[in-house]
Amino acid sequence: MSEEMKVADSFELAIVGCGPAGLSAAINGAIRKKKVAIFGTEFCSPKLHHAPHIDNYLGLPQITGEELRKKFLEHLQVMKLEIRNSKISGIYPQEGGFILQSRDIFYQATSVILATGVSTVKPINQELDYLGRGVAYCSTCDGPLYKGKRVIVLAYNREGLEEANFLAEIAAEVLLVPVLKDEDAKGIELNQKIQIIKGKPMGIIGEMWATGVALDGQDLTADGIFIVRDSVLPDQLVPGLEVSNKGIIVDRGCATNIPGVFAAGDCTGVPYQLCKAAGEGQVAALSAVKYLDELKHKE
Amino acid sequence: MSEEMKVADSFELAIVGCGPAGLSAAINGAIRKKKVAIFGTEFCSPKLHHAPHIDNYLGLPQITGEELRKKFLEHLQVMKLEIRNSKISGIYPQEGGFILQSRDIFYQATSVILATGVSTVKPINQELDYLGRGVAYCSTCDGPLYKGKRVIVLAYNREGLEEANFLAEIAAEVLLVPVLKDEDAKGIELNQKIQIIKGKPMGIIGEMWATGVALDGQDLTADGIFIVRDSVLPDQLVPGLEVSNKGIIVDRGCATNIPGVFAAGDCTGVPYQLCKAAGEGQVAALSAVKYLDELKHKE
Repeated sequence: MSEEMKVADSFELAIVGCGPAGLSAAINGAIRKKKVAIFGTEFCSPKLHHAPHIDNYLGLPQITGEELRKKFLEHLQVMKLEIRNSKISGIYPQEGGFILQSRDIFYQATSVILATGVSTVKPINQELDYLGRGVAYCSTCDGPLYKGKRVIVLAYNREGLEEANFLAEIAAEVLLVPVLKDEDAKGIELNQKIQIIKGKPMGIIGEMWATGVALDGQDLTADGIFIVRDSVLPDQLVPGLEVSNKGIIVDRGCATNIPGVFAAGDCTGVPYQLCKAAGEGQVAALSAVKYLDELKHKE
Repeated sequence: MSEEMKVADSFELAIVGCGPAGLSAAINGAIRKKKVAIFGTEFCSPKLHHAPHIDNYLGLPQITGEELRKKFLEHLQVMKLEIRNSKISGIYPQEGGFILQSRDIFYQATSVILATGVSTVKPINQELDYLGRGVAYCSTCDGPLYKGKRVIVLAYNREGLEEANFLAEIAAEVLLVPVLKDEDAKGIELNQKIQIIKGKPMGIIGEMWATGVALDGQDLTADGIFIVRDSVLPDQLVPGLEVSNKGIIVDRGCATNIPGVFAAGDCTGVPYQLCKAAGEGQVAALSAVKYLDELKHKE
């Protein structure tokens, strides 16, 4: 994080993710009169949007996912709540709460609810082993470390191309591996310094420190590797967060191992279901409210 | 239990309680093609019925409890499910599952979900200490033990008067302490053998075995004491069930300490909220389905 960091806004409760768990958390936090923010890049839940028929959301039988998505968003409107169209890439503890980073914008929050859904993304080979040792997800945060050096960008989305452009202004050389559909790249002009290399990323190579990327046809070498995808794994999002192969580890009150950080919905594990997600969103919000109230009493 | 016990019906999944948690469990169990029964004496949830305004059931903003209660019951109808108007007074393990007792009717179930809500009943002094040692809740089960003896019935509801009549046919003497409103007793003719005693039950008296009841004005002595209330505490319902002062102890999958018994909703502890209850009902049902499927694979 930059030392010149400026906080754009502050909240008592920041909710990361805007599927059913995030929305239920937001509604409950707002009813309990907390200053709430909901962060999400997506229009509620694309997964919900694509569900043809839902029969097990108690009280709303025989409904399509799209109808339910609209009802959820209507509920948000009735409560005068809005989703902030920001992708949070990192959540870092600081005195009295947390800093949430969205590119070069920083927010402050006393408590956080993770409602990031289930990640279908699988890291490539050794990606997690080299995290912080040559592999990074955020060019704004880690880009300056590679001034005058050679970097690889694995771009799984449009944002990855923008990040490559940003890095081209700092690094000496940028090797861009586009792993996205051509139509998603439309209209982006790449910095002429960028060298485009086609191939499928298979894994990170290196020894103590990452030294490059193995593609299906060739190996690339570099000083640093930036991986840009739609979803970030929860333990990449919040350093030190305890997760298992089933999801974020939470107790019955949806508290994680980090005081002030709660989690709800698919990101806490199976079953991946709407009622479960909405219920956990509620539980997480009420636990966060209790946490906030207890903090106030301590002051 | 009588040895001549006849089983009226058998289910793969028996749900005890028909509030939001029980209904959500039933819907999910039925969608997964299990033979489901829902037991409840009440028309869904009286607590819900009396809620003037509910704002935090995601997808249905600004609704009254009564409207929501109707929507829940409509969902049940759409799924072609019905609530069985039976009060379950005991759940006992047997080979391959459980026996559920409702007065003199017995049901068999391979798995059970407890969705009994929160009990506002406080036991009287020493009641739980003498459970099974002179204090009983079910005259059908324990009445025959008091043939020719003297019993006390603490009747907190209309059913208590009926139980007193039943016991009058077995016991030598029945002392009835009515702890209900006069209007709730309307139309019941008491057996002439029954002696009515007015007073407020303060506690059970006894040494190794219960020997009577302390009322606010006097002490009564007897060989056995029957206590009849609307709600039964969960660990009275299922012998051996682990509970804390917060509710039934469950894991993240809503499993209790007894294999095949799950719990959901207010009976598992705070927060006492609709979304939480519906979510847990869903989780409990899907855990029960998994339990049933695994049992089948073992066969």
